[in-house]
Amino acid sequence: MMNVIGATVSTDSTLSAQHAVRDIVLPNQVDHVPQVAVDIGGSLAKVVYYTPSPSKGGRLHFKIFETDRLDECIDFLAQLMTKARLLAPHVKQVLQATGGGAHLFHNLLTERLPGVEVKKDDEMECLISGLSFFITEIPYEVFTYNENDANPIRFEQISKNIYPYMLVNIGSGVSILKVTGPNQFSRISGTSLGGGTLWGLLSLLTDATSFDDMLEIAKDGDNRRVDLMVGDIYGTDYNKIGLKSSRIASSFGKVFKKGVRQDKGSFDSSDISKSLLYMISNNIGQIAYLNAKQHDIKRIYFGGCFIRGHPITMNTLSYAIKFWSNGDMKALFLLHEGHLGATGAFLKHRALPKPTHNCHYPGTV
Amino acid sequence: MMNVIGATVSTDSTLSAQHAVRDIVLPNQVDHVPQVAVDIGGSLAKVVYYTPSPSKGGRLHFKIFETDRLDECIDFLAQLMTKARLLAPHVKQVLQATGGGAHLFHNLLTERLPGVEVKKDDEMECLISGLSFFITEIPYEVFTYNENDANPIRFEQISKNIYPYMLVNIGSGVSILKVTGPNQFSRISGTSLGGGTLWGLLSLLTDATSFDDMLEIAKDGDNRRVDLMVGDIYGTDYNKIGLKSSRIASSFGKVFKKGVRQDKGSFDSSDISKSLLYMISNNIGQIAYLNAKQHDIKRIYFGGCFIRGHPITMNTLSYAIKFWSNGDMKALFLLHEGHLGATGAFLKHRALPKPTHNCHYPGTV
Repeated sequence: MMNVIGATVSTDSTLSAQHAVRDIVLPNQVDHVPQVAVDIGGSLAKVVYYTPSPSKGGRLHFKIFETDRLDECIDFLAQLMTKARLLAPHVKQVLQATGGGAHLFHNLLTERLPGVEVKKDDEMECLISGLSFFITEIPYEVFTYNENDANPIRFEQISKNIYPYMLVNIGSGVSILKVTGPNQFSRISGTSLGGGTLWGLLSLLTDATSFDDMLEIAKDGDNRRVDLMVGDIYGTDYNKIGLKSSRIASSFGKVFKKGVRQDKGSFDSSDISKSLLYMISNNIGQIAYLNAKQHDIKRIYFGGCFIRGHPITMNTLSYAIKFWSNGDMKALFLLHEGHLGATGAFLKHRALPKPTHNCHYPGTV
Repeated sequence: MMNVIGATVSTDSTLSAQHAVRDIVLPNQVDHVPQVAVDIGGSLAKVVYYTPSPSKGGRLHFKIFETDRLDECIDFLAQLMTKARLLAPHVKQVLQATGGGAHLFHNLLTERLPGVEVKKDDEMECLISGLSFFITEIPYEVFTYNENDANPIRFEQISKNIYPYMLVNIGSGVSILKVTGPNQFSRISGTSLGGGTLWGLLSLLTDATSFDDMLEIAKDGDNRRVDLMVGDIYGTDYNKIGLKSSRIASSFGKVFKKGVRQDKGSFDSSDISKSLLYMISNNIGQIAYLNAKQHDIKRIYFGGCFIRGHPITMNTLSYAIKFWSNGDMKALFLLHEGHLGATGAFLKHRALPKPTHNCHYPGTV
């Protein structure tokens, strides 16, 4: 069992390093931890594992691999298992696997990790138990984001009184879950316009070759050079229905001219990236709001690797929720946003003694 | 006043000519019709005008121009006005102008059409009065679409008992209006992912240079070569939450590979076009459903020049509404989908005698 009393987010790295997902320090963990967890999605494989500290307690670590390079991920898992086996040779080793890849790659994982039991865990269950762990146990984990504040990140107080809430998990695609109590949830909606859409279109439309390049070039872009704004159509605000001239009327609406071949060179990569990022984030925010409204929910957690702690993304999602709900709903983010499923799978493990006939691996005592 | 008794859709052209918008025959119109209407949107300018028949009655005509080539449209309007002036020199000529361009180009229209009064009409009001005219007065105008039927187009009976309903008008961007009675409506939502987004992205990603090229190449495309399907992630259906393996998990989710520069050449234009068409149409269908659900509305009319009578688009919108509402709501289309606003503006006109001091134009009696 995990002892999460006194758990904190490590402050070794800074928040600006959007990528290095911070460790979670577990000062009171005593038992050996025999499990590793992996959540294999359509684009990314997320890993959670524990290492003991030299003195007392230990740390949870969070890693990300590409699903297309799953071999690298499995090599890493094999190394972890080998090290752990040295520490506790008599304990049955378990890989808690979730996400679609837990099904698609189950045979591969079993073959490549001999002596390890590969358990399949339901993706939605893991997302919710991971989220619940972060919300209720980890201080300085959940925050709101508002770029107009001097400090845009404002952490939420830990609370056990959290229901009902909604999780919008943005991976390659988007799943929307409604949670009404401990282990009471359903997937109420989703959209295919998610992270995979942004990365896919950007890799066709710009020279960027990594997620971070794409987010970096979006930073200085001006979407108004490719988007058609209300002001471009009306000349002014459309006051009668409350549409400001600065509102986007049509994403990419300035690009098409009949009979004129446009190519990537005609428009700046940074403007295209900004426009696409706004388009996808606004759309997810709007669909999230509409679902929250239908189910009368005020608290919306955004998870998944799409967010990556990226300020423009978080601000756009926050703004969309505020705009559509007239300030009645709240967009919430997490430091470990991309590892909800993997963390849920990790916490599912209940240790059992390793059967004796499985003891004799090379290198074990 | 227009006499719409006995109005019918002309059968001169066939339905397969997706573009030539059919005339409406008005067999009982007697009075002279002194007005022409234009609806100038972000991408397209739509014109509605009347011509008398040699014997009795006359016809409404429907034209489309590019907003970027507004001069061509204004030249056409000027010719219409000149001809009409010869027929009825003592009647004040009026251009009923709506859409954002009625505001943005008001001075230009006034300058280029001397002697014509350019009246601005509210865009949403015109959309709804145009739609109401088509729903309540024109037989064989409104239809449902289902590609699985031997004849996919099924016309609706004319009915006066039509409230409440929703209009999803898909132009460059999308406006969603709720209509609860005659002249009782409000714009309840919208999205920037509309026609301008599809045409803009396709003009960057394919070699197509016209709307029809784009729709034509989409016809033979296979979106599964660029979209990540549930089956690509899970290997099978994700039965527990009812997601079939054939469902799109992530639009364009197969495109991005870290560190590998993708360009347009790596993927087929027809596959990209199909994927984008599905993406935009599905998304509009989902947002339409969520709004209809919130406002307890079952009948959803889709208007605007995005649809263009295109089978894949209509089928995707119909399927989305059926899927999300479990068959509880109905997607409805119109033969004159793109001219709702212009028709509404046209019908607003109430003829007044031309003041005498305005009589002496060259060529008038």
